[in-house]
Amino acid sequence: MLNNKMTELLKVKYPIIQAPMAGGITTSALVAEVSNTGGLGMIGAGYLTPVQTREQIKEVKQLTSNPFGINLFVPNEFKVTENEIKSANQFLNPIRQKLNLEQKENMEIPNYKDVYETFIEQIKVVIEEKVPICSFTFGIPSNEIIAELKQANIILIGTATTVREAVENEKAGMDIVVAQGSEAGGHRGSFMNGSQESLIGLMSLIPQVVDDVNIPVVAAGGIMDGRGLMASICLGAMGVQMGTAFLTCIESGANKVHKEAILNAKDEQTVLTRSFSGKWARGIKNKFILEMQNHEALLPDFPAQNTLTQDIRKTSSAQKNQDFMSLWSGQTPRLAKNQNVKSLITNIMAEAKKLSYMEAK
Amino acid sequence: MLNNKMTELLKVKYPIIQAPMAGGITTSALVAEVSNTGGLGMIGAGYLTPVQTREQIKEVKQLTSNPFGINLFVPNEFKVTENEIKSANQFLNPIRQKLNLEQKENMEIPNYKDVYETFIEQIKVVIEEKVPICSFTFGIPSNEIIAELKQANIILIGTATTVREAVENEKAGMDIVVAQGSEAGGHRGSFMNGSQESLIGLMSLIPQVVDDVNIPVVAAGGIMDGRGLMASICLGAMGVQMGTAFLTCIESGANKVHKEAILNAKDEQTVLTRSFSGKWARGIKNKFILEMQNHEALLPDFPAQNTLTQDIRKTSSAQKNQDFMSLWSGQTPRLAKNQNVKSLITNIMAEAKKLSYMEAK
Repeated sequence: MLNNKMTELLKVKYPIIQAPMAGGITTSALVAEVSNTGGLGMIGAGYLTPVQTREQIKEVKQLTSNPFGINLFVPNEFKVTENEIKSANQFLNPIRQKLNLEQKENMEIPNYKDVYETFIEQIKVVIEEKVPICSFTFGIPSNEIIAELKQANIILIGTATTVREAVENEKAGMDIVVAQGSEAGGHRGSFMNGSQESLIGLMSLIPQVVDDVNIPVVAAGGIMDGRGLMASICLGAMGVQMGTAFLTCIESGANKVHKEAILNAKDEQTVLTRSFSGKWARGIKNKFILEMQNHEALLPDFPAQNTLTQDIRKTSSAQKNQDFMSLWSGQTPRLAKNQNVKSLITNIMAEAKKLSYMEAK
Repeated sequence: MLNNKMTELLKVKYPIIQAPMAGGITTSALVAEVSNTGGLGMIGAGYLTPVQTREQIKEVKQLTSNPFGINLFVPNEFKVTENEIKSANQFLNPIRQKLNLEQKENMEIPNYKDVYETFIEQIKVVIEEKVPICSFTFGIPSNEIIAELKQANIILIGTATTVREAVENEKAGMDIVVAQGSEAGGHRGSFMNGSQESLIGLMSLIPQVVDDVNIPVVAAGGIMDGRGLMASICLGAMGVQMGTAFLTCIESGANKVHKEAILNAKDEQTVLTRSFSGKWARGIKNKFILEMQNHEALLPDFPAQNTLTQDIRKTSSAQKNQDFMSLWSGQTPRLAKNQNVKSLITNIMAEAKKLSYMEAK
C-alpha cells in the first residue's frame, strides 16, 4: 500500500510530498533534504520571478540527485479598480501607522497580462531545467502548456478541493491529483466551486474523489504523522502532501515567529481569511485578521490584495511581530514539532508500518 | 483494533454507532435493527416529549434485547424578544404564502425554563427505563445529573467539536466522547468555541483529541463505509458514529424526498445554515437556505427559530416539496446508498477487515 502507482510515477521511496509552500518557506535545504530522505521535496515558486525560479532549481539540483518538484500558481483573470485600491488602503493605513510605514493612497498593481507572462516564463524555465515534477495550484493550465510539459516528460500534479475539480484535472491530463481538504493551511486551491462548497474535510473528500478518478490521489490537509498517512491510505489515497509538518522543521525557511506561533497554537486558533492576499487561506488568528474581518468582503481579489499588504507583511516579519504576519497553518498545529526533516519522515514511516500491521481482531 | 475499550463499554460487537438523528429519522425499527446487527442503535430524542421518549424506549426494547442508546439535547440558555420574532416572521411569511400557510406576526415560543424542565423529565425517563447508554449534544449536563445517571449504571457519551470540548467532557465524567468533525451533517454539537473555530476536519480533530483525553474517542462526520471506519481507527479513534449512511437506509424514518435529495447529491451541495433552527447545521442547499441566507445573522437562537419554522418544515415535508425542508446531510452524499441496515453494517465490517490486513510493503 505504501509503494504504489504514485511512488512509481514520482520515483520516490516514500509516499510523502512536502507541500510547495510559497513565500520563502521551501528553502533549497528543505526541498533537497526531503528528497534525500526519500520523500518528494517541492519548490513553492508561486511568488518567484522566472530568474529566481531558475536559480532555486539549480541550487536544489546541487543538493540532491533525487527527484524533486516545483509548484506554480495558475494565474486567474482579475480586475481591480482605483477605488478598490483606495478603499483597501484606507483599512490598511492604520496598521501601516502602527508599524511606522508610509501611508498609501493609490498603488501600482501588476495586471493579469503581466502575471500571465511571468507564468509562461516560469513554464519555460521548468522545461529548460528539466524539473522532473511540476504541480499547479489555483487552476489548470491550457492544453498547449500541458502538452509541452508532457512532451518534456515532466510528471504533472494538479490540485483539487472538490470532486468536480479532481475530475477536471484528470480530464486535462494531470498524472496525479492532490485533494486538498478543508483542514489544509495556507491558500485554498479552489478554482471551480464557491468557497463554502469547497471546504470539504478529507474524511469526505478522499473516498469521493477516489471513486470518481483513475489517477493516483494524494491527500493534503492536516496530516502530520503516521496516523494521518495510514488514514489517508485507508480512504483510498496513495500518499500525502504535508505543509505545516514541514513548515516547523529546522530546514524550513519560515520565520521563527511563524514557527513558534504554530508550535504554541491550539486547534481552535486557525481561521479562514482573505485579508492577506484576496484569496481564502487558513492561518492562525492574529490582530491583522481580527482588524480586517469586517472589511473582508470589500477587499480586492488575489493577487491585488497580496501586493497591497506586502509592505505590512514584510515589515511585521522583519520586526518579528506576529500581529500582522500571515501565520499560515493547517488545523493540526498541536501535532507540529520543531525537528529535522529526517526525523519527521523516519517517524512517519515507522508509525505507518506499525499501524499497517494491525489486525482486525 | 476493532474490538476495544469502546465496544467493551457499550457491549456491542462492532464499533459502529448509529447517530441519534432527531426529528423522526431514528424509528424504533432503525434503532433496533442496528443493535440486532451488532452496532449501537440510538434514539434521537432531542425533540421528543418525555411521554414520547418513554414510548419509544419501550418500543425499541420489544424489538431488540441488545444494548441501545438515547440522545438528549442539553438545553442552552436563550432569550428571544418579540421584535426578533416579528422580524424573523417577516422573512418567513413570503415562504408561508408559497405553501398556502397562514401568515404569522407574533408566536408563542417555549422559554428556557420549560425546555429545561422537559430535559429533566427525559433524564428521569431514561433512568426509570434503564436505557443502557445515554449521549448528549449541545453541552454537558450538570454534575448532579451526571452523578444520578452514573449511579444508575448508564454509560455516558458526550459530544465535542474541539479538543477543548473533548477535555471538558472527560472532566465531567463522560465514559466516551464523540468527536464531530466539520464533515458532519445536521446540527453542529459545538458549545464552547466560535462557529468557525469549531469546524475542524476529522483528519485534524481525531489525533489531537486522542492525544489529549484518556477516554475512548468515537469519530463522527462524513464516515460512510469501511474506508472511513479504518481511517478513523488509524487516527486513534475506537469507533465511528454514522448519520447520513443510516439516514438513507430502508429502516430510517427520513422522508423519501430527503433520502432522494442525498442519494442524488454531489459533494459540493452541502452548506452550513442556521436558518432552520437558529443553530448551525449542515444540509443540502435548497431554496429555503438560499432565500434566508442574507437574514441568517438576524434570526433568533435555537430553539426559537426552530419553533418559528416548524409549520414550514412540516407542510413542505407533507407535500414532498424539498424546497423548504431541512435536508440534513454530511459531506459524503455520493457514498450514500438505499440499502437495509444489515447490508450497510456487514459491508462496512467486511471492507474494514480487508483493509486492516494490508501490508506496509
